[in-house]
Amino acid sequence: MTEDMGQHAGAPRELGVAVLGLGNVGTEVVRIITENAIDLRERIGAPLVIRGIAVRDLGRDRGVARELLTDDPASLIRRDDVDIVIEVVGGIEPPRELIRTALELGKSVVTANKALLAEYTGELAAAAAAANVDLYFEAAVAGAIPVVRPLMQSLAGDQVERVAGIVNGTTNYILSAMAETGADYETALAEAGRLGYAEADPTADVEGYDAAAKAAILASIAFHSRVTAADVYREGISSVTAADLASAAKFDCTVKLLSICERITEADGTERISARVYPALIPLAHPLATVSGAYNAVVVEAHDAGRLMFYGQGAGGAPTASAVMGDVVMAARNKVHSGRGPLESTYASLAIAPIAQVPTRYYVAMHVLDRPGVLEGVAGEFAKHHVSIAAVRQEGDGGRTQLIVITHRAPDGALAETVAALKNMEAVTAVTSVLRMEGTDE
Amino acid sequence: MTEDMGQHAGAPRELGVAVLGLGNVGTEVVRIITENAIDLRERIGAPLVIRGIAVRDLGRDRGVARELLTDDPASLIRRDDVDIVIEVVGGIEPPRELIRTALELGKSVVTANKALLAEYTGELAAAAAAANVDLYFEAAVAGAIPVVRPLMQSLAGDQVERVAGIVNGTTNYILSAMAETGADYETALAEAGRLGYAEADPTADVEGYDAAAKAAILASIAFHSRVTAADVYREGISSVTAADLASAAKFDCTVKLLSICERITEADGTERISARVYPALIPLAHPLATVSGAYNAVVVEAHDAGRLMFYGQGAGGAPTASAVMGDVVMAARNKVHSGRGPLESTYASLAIAPIAQVPTRYYVAMHVLDRPGVLEGVAGEFAKHHVSIAAVRQEGDGGRTQLIVITHRAPDGALAETVAALKNMEAVTAVTSVLRMEGTDE
Repeated sequence: MTEDMGQHAGAPRELGVAVLGLGNVGTEVVRIITENAIDLRERIGAPLVIRGIAVRDLGRDRGVARELLTDDPASLIRRDDVDIVIEVVGGIEPPRELIRTALELGKSVVTANKALLAEYTGELAAAAAAANVDLYFEAAVAGAIPVVRPLMQSLAGDQVERVAGIVNGTTNYILSAMAETGADYETALAEAGRLGYAEADPTADVEGYDAAAKAAILASIAFHSRVTAADVYREGISSVTAADLASAAKFDCTVKLLSICERITEADGTERISARVYPALIPLAHPLATVSGAYNAVVVEAHDAGRLMFYGQGAGGAPTASAVMGDVVMAARNKVHSGRGPLESTYASLAIAPIAQVPTRYYVAMHVLDRPGVLEGVAGEFAKHHVSIAAVRQEGDGGRTQLIVITHRAPDGALAETVAALKNMEAVTAVTSVLRMEGTDE
Repeated sequence: MTEDMGQHAGAPRELGVAVLGLGNVGTEVVRIITENAIDLRERIGAPLVIRGIAVRDLGRDRGVARELLTDDPASLIRRDDVDIVIEVVGGIEPPRELIRTALELGKSVVTANKALLAEYTGELAAAAAAANVDLYFEAAVAGAIPVVRPLMQSLAGDQVERVAGIVNGTTNYILSAMAETGADYETALAEAGRLGYAEADPTADVEGYDAAAKAAILASIAFHSRVTAADVYREGISSVTAADLASAAKFDCTVKLLSICERITEADGTERISARVYPALIPLAHPLATVSGAYNAVVVEAHDAGRLMFYGQGAGGAPTASAVMGDVVMAARNKVHSGRGPLESTYASLAIAPIAQVPTRYYVAMHVLDRPGVLEGVAGEFAKHHVSIAAVRQEGDGGRTQLIVITHRAPDGALAETVAALKNMEAVTAVTSVLRMEGTDE
């Protein structure tokens, strides 16, 4: 038990924990603290004791000791015998105010709140730094998968070039189901809801807000810059069709909602960050293509480490609680040893590259008139905007002629202008789908 | 730049580094410290300055400033202006003595030395704890892939049940080549040597010593117990044949050298650790089956997190240096903020389960006489030892009859006794191959 030898003389004899929220994750956190009490004490160097659990409705029976429950989180976090606050409520307020207050009072905070962090990490990290306490949030991105700590610590000596991940289980479940069964979006969404993979109001997931918040957090850490959710270009999956997945398969691709954070070096050497979320075609051979259902995966490319991949369960009570508890043990250990983990690092202060300047590839599906010269005309519009075509597939589609074009890499703005121009062509009766393509080098 | 606000008043104005060893990894470490000086300073909160580089032969030109080189590492680590020692020499001595001395003198140490750690973590961690400094070794297991820190920190609140990984690139390259080209072991080994994937003396790799050292390190961390290389059951790949890989393919499997660390709960509730390294059949659908060439991957199964996978480059100068530098930045940051990361945790003190008691599955290939009743006799031997057969394949093999049996899970000792009995059967002319099978639940 080498660890104990380093314990400070004035170290606390026990560590008090306040748990804010008793939903799926909170319930599992309480279970782990209770069931693993002996192991946690040994790993920390002092026992971890729950001082209280803040819930909205005291009336409901929750299977935990009644006397621990309170509906007054503001008083709970202020208790002198609370050393660590675990926030698993979600939403901006009241968590923002509670966390800031807790930090100011010298309590370390562990949170899984991606929406909050994607907006207010700056303010919260400043409060943590001023009080010399920890603000940990491994569970905010990709559930149980260690991603925040590896990016912040293990890669602290490297230059991260790119982070691309599937970090939303709901949309991945829907897109996987569409790819496997041929179902359309509405059917797959309804099934996801029925199985508990989609919430009653699925907007935050299907429109990419959740993935964008996580992209903001990942980009901030990866590039040592402050990136908020508003900086992230975002498209959801609600317009992805069964036809898109069928077409993707013909190009040996599938469609995934990706959160991408990329270092973009411009011609003059200026470095910018691109942070973006959208459904994209990726080759079936790409490591992210096989990530199906509710699983998450994050691929990190760094200058010296090369390509790393992290894979696991991205949501769910127990997996998320595992990530929370890893942070709790580290924060508790730091309380015992008077240490502190790294907080945000924003020295690089890289600016955000506008999406129009970001090089991407496009997949464009359109209905065209069945007459000579149409392909020539369409190709001409791409050429006019300096967009090089990588592949074309033309086929009958129930009486209409469908044309699918996959481009080489070009600035997103040029691609968007090309699509606008295609829509104005008389021979193009409809542009039925525009998706980006990722995971290839061309 | 929130980070700076937390800097201690008495924090060092610069951090001195001693680099021991200037091989593949050392050269990359020196390059990164030089090239990324500005970023490293911002991330640490103080500049990182190389005080000296210890090499064996001062005469060789190495492309670094001559005045930094020394052939006296013992003096270098004793310098008052050295705060962190990076050991990338390898081998037990002199690194053991140098690292212990450095720790006793209050220097933090970052090492990639798996052979040393697999024997002497206890002694070194005790020295680090006594001096309240860091001993980090992310690079010792799986190169660039963050595995040590996630296991030690991110999963600190969880119960790890199993760690199984491909952590030796040389053997993975050889087995991948055998699977892909049908080459025999000697040919694939020679090719690996030609391409720089195998050393002139490949014993440490092909006989599994390297993988066993890493298994010992992983098991120690995962199960909070002291496990040394001698505790790891070990078989290498030199007896794996082209025929084994061909047979494996017929069962939709491939063969990989696995390092497995498992928590075994016995009937009376006693928990033991199994740590073992051997070539094993794994189903082609298993996530480790697609890890080919010089890549490494580690699958961790934990009670709450579920199954996690970490994938990336397991060796090579730059990837290993990336892992070293992540540790250096964290150790340097701790020097600036007067903190310290976790050291070894051995409170659980679980005993090692003898291999004979570990439940595994066997793949047994044998030549048998082509006469009635042979299969019945063979099956009888398995039954006699209470080993249940999962699959049998019988086929002509150039005039001889080959019988392949895959078993269900049974104690390894019972399986070994079964094989011994088979060898004594008159109808069995030769047992040509015995491999274990992993990655299935049966």
